[in-house]
Amino acid sequence: MIKVTVWNEAVHEKFSREVARVYPDGIHGCIKDFLSLDDEIEVRTATLGMKECGLPDQVLEDTDVLIWWGHMAHGKVPDKLVDKIYDRVLRGMGLIVLHSGHHSKIFKKLMGTTCNLSWREGDRERLWLVNPSHPIARGVDPCFELDVEEMYGERFDIPEPDQLIFLGWFAGGEVFRSGCCWQKGLGRVFYFQPGHESNPTYHNENVQKVITNAVHWVYPANGIAEKLECPHIKKSPEEIYKERNNG
Amino acid sequence: MIKVTVWNEAVHEKFSREVARVYPDGIHGCIKDFLSLDDEIEVRTATLGMKECGLPDQVLEDTDVLIWWGHMAHGKVPDKLVDKIYDRVLRGMGLIVLHSGHHSKIFKKLMGTTCNLSWREGDRERLWLVNPSHPIARGVDPCFELDVEEMYGERFDIPEPDQLIFLGWFAGGEVFRSGCCWQKGLGRVFYFQPGHESNPTYHNENVQKVITNAVHWVYPANGIAEKLECPHIKKSPEEIYKERNNG
Amino acid sequence: MIKVTVWNEAVHEKFSREVARVYPDGIHGCIKDFLSLDDEIEVRTATLGMKECGLPDQVLEDTDVLIWWGHMAHGKVPDKLVDKIYDRVLRGMGLIVLHSGHHSKIFKKLMGTTCNLSWREGDRERLWLVNPSHPIARGVDPCFELDVEEMYGERFDIPEPDQLIFLGWFAGGEVFRSGCCWQKGLGRVFYFQPGHESNPTYHNENVQKVITNAVHWVYPANGIAEKLECPHIKKSPEEIYKERNNG
Amino acid sequence: MIKVTVWNEAVHEKFSREVARVYPDGIHGCIKDFLSLDDEIEVRTATLGMKECGLPDQVLEDTDVLIWWGHMAHGKVPDKLVDKIYDRVLRGMGLIVLHSGHHSKIFKKLMGTTCNLSWREGDRERLWLVNPSHPIARGVDPCFELDVEEMYGERFDIPEPDQLIFLGWFAGGEVFRSGCCWQKGLGRVFYFQPGHESNPTYHNENVQKVITNAVHWVYPANGIAEKLECPHIKKSPEEIYKERNNG
Repeated sequence: MIKVTVWNEAVHEKFSREVARVYPDGIHGCIKDFLSLDDEIEVRTATLGMKECGLPDQVLEDTDVLIWWGHMAHGKVPDKLVDKIYDRVLRGMGLIVLHSGHHSKIFKKLMGTTCNLSWREGDRERLWLVNPSHPIARGVDPCFELDVEEMYGERFDIPEPDQLIFLGWFAGGEVFRSGCCWQKGLGRVFYFQPGHESNPTYHNENVQKVITNAVHWVYPANGIAEKLECPHIKKSPEEIYKERNNG
Repeated sequence: MIKVTVWNEAVHEKFSREVARVYPDGIHGCIKDFLSLDDEIEVRTATLGMKECGLPDQVLEDTDVLIWWGHMAHGKVPDKLVDKIYDRVLRGMGLIVLHSGHHSKIFKKLMGTTCNLSWREGDRERLWLVNPSHPIARGVDPCFELDVEEMYGERFDIPEPDQLIFLGWFAGGEVFRSGCCWQKGLGRVFYFQPGHESNPTYHNENVQKVITNAVHWVYPANGIAEKLECPHIKKSPEEIYKERNNG
Repeated sequence: MIKVTVWNEAVHEKFSREVARVYPDGIHGCIKDFLSLDDEIEVRTATLGMKECGLPDQVLEDTDVLIWWGHMAHGKVPDKLVDKIYDRVLRGMGLIVLHSGHHSKIFKKLMGTTCNLSWREGDRERLWLVNPSHPIARGVDPCFELDVEEMYGERFDIPEPDQLIFLGWFAGGEVFRSGCCWQKGLGRVFYFQPGHESNPTYHNENVQKVITNAVHWVYPANGIAEKLECPHIKKSPEEIYKERNNG
Repeated sequence: MIKVTVWNEAVHEKFSREVARVYPDGIHGCIKDFLSLDDEIEVRTATLGMKECGLPDQVLEDTDVLIWWGHMAHGKVPDKLVDKIYDRVLRGMGLIVLHSGHHSKIFKKLMGTTCNLSWREGDRERLWLVNPSHPIARGVDPCFELDVEEMYGERFDIPEPDQLIFLGWFAGGEVFRSGCCWQKGLGRVFYFQPGHESNPTYHNENVQKVITNAVHWVYPANGIAEKLECPHIKKSPEEIYKERNNG
């Protein structure tokens, strides 16, 4: 079983009727619902308002894949928690960052760039698959539309992705690298641009497939390391080799 | 001086009044004209109709950067010539492939893929710079428009570019990786999508800057190797080291 | 089930007692034996001496993953067969190229480079894992030794790998990018350097794990396309969108 | 002129006679000396012990390329200064990180990984050029030796380099990705492994060429941006286009 924790700041849902209508159980609730349909995935949710932001050590250390949605309240996530998540990603935990999470502390820290972009409200988007044989693309349409989505446009200040999976086309004239993969330390990171809080994006079938596939792709199949090491080697491999062979 | 040879099949220019009106001296003539404004560049042109396709050994071996425009007549370029160009790129010669050159023999051979794409006539394009600090982007607008351009859309069957410089947005709804860089052997390759024969694309100031910058970027600053080698090492570096130090 | 075909030119095995002693059933036989221990893998073998080189259409089109070992007889593999393999890789088939297969027609065609390297007989190698969380590294030791292996040294003329998995250290003083991954078209390609015909390399437990893992990694999980297309779009996505919404 | 600032913590030089003997003017002094031989480079030095660590705003904002050597005193570099350097790299400043600088705050922040490695004192190294046509390799020997150098071995916890230039071979049996390039934001970063404080590495001619070439390569030829922006677009490109064309 892949243990997924869906983290959502869950602030918009409280203050906006519009958002609450689209996501009555929160964005995290919606994501949990569709992920739960996958027999290999076990999901829990966590939100900013919970004790320790919903991510005390016993939860974080029991998470294989963390999904992150945040927007208004990036600054309220404690640096210490960010450091723990960072450490766990580098040890192997998978991380999926959604939409406005591009400016979350954890994503910026992992990318080592500003993750800035240009943005504009309420446009229409069409997503194009540029890497159809990638595991994240499995069963996803070569191109699909989102009737309303916030425009995120280039230049997106990220390190060149290891693999580029989706490009976004916006009716207003912009383009975006909408689905990007990186390896950081032992962990895999996937960023997916769609998902503004007031749009029904996470109800879209293609979007659900992408996120479900991404859970499988970022899953640390080789395990999560116990700690990060910088070993001082006292005896060289050649010394060991020679001892073994001359002994 | 950078020795550039602009190769054009120059077939459309002969049969289409429309094309001849846009490029009275051929596409190659237009490219030669704007490149000649750069003091560090020395340009000659070559066309399919010339003897040995305009690329006899003494021309090819005197070329630092080859620019390639072809479309209707890809099949008429002899395989032997393609092999020579391929060999010279791998030894260091820079190569810039324009527009419909995506299906030229030399580009497909270097990419090791089909270089297929989807296409549609007569659309409007907007190009977005995704890598503004790259040498090819120097002085180029962050985004610029081409009122008429052939649509080239994803999926573009190329190996993941080493650097992605431009993304193209089309009014009809498609996107494209419009400016891509690769290193192949000792040579640098740049593909640039705009430039349909009947459109005044090569008169566009931004397009001219991109191609001029690309000439500088693909230029083999470390030189062009005389031949490609697969050396059989008779004495190991460690044997040589020990002889030298115990001698 | 993953359908694997292990192809071997199987020439050395016939002419050299030494090779025959190390691989009494041929290199292909040895690889078949250890792959067969994996319940998800179904293996057959094919050799140069068989009718149609052991790869008639019905075999090739029934292969998910092709493993390639060749050396002396690269030139005897017909270009037409190479074209068919190339086409199938670009449509999704996985390809694992071993050792001297670096100079096989199929590998050079996919790489679009010479795949030259420097080489020297009979050294000792130590392989280092540089990407331990990659699926190909699963369960593999962070570093392992091969008492006798042919030296393959840099510069290896390949396009920059999408992922570098292993580096090889040679006692004689050279280094090599010994395990490299690329995506070409819809297919995944893995090159693995160890495996000289007269050395018991394919009996090594770590080597067997690497090749078995590689079979899973190059397997085309999203399927193999029926054909390669370059579609002419007659109606743009935006026209279709507008018709659908104004109908 | 390229304005280079060579930063050195310059602590070892004070406490160790051995280091002071090898670098009587400090490591920074040695680097300044050989860089000054290049007519296009203007060099100044800065050390930890100077006011504001030698990098007050007027110095940092007048620097095109920053070279960084640190080891014992990484922790003494104030976070605020690191943030300023980080910001300037993302705006375009080139950065060259040497040897033990792999654990400097600025390098770890830019990489977004631990930058851990394995290490061992006092070995012998041979560097191999894997990308001879890269500008950083210009005029550098395809392979060169350092009689004494600290061993840095894999796994090096860095994001997959955009370009890998050098591999290091150590007599004791390890390998290392010794010369690596990345683009971060608008800036270029080069990491070069040799250069332990007590070894005469920076007196080596090949090492001097590599660092001099790297200065040219990381130089921000397209300029340094004044600030990092995340623009809110009020009017879409298509609205502007339509107004302009219907006006």
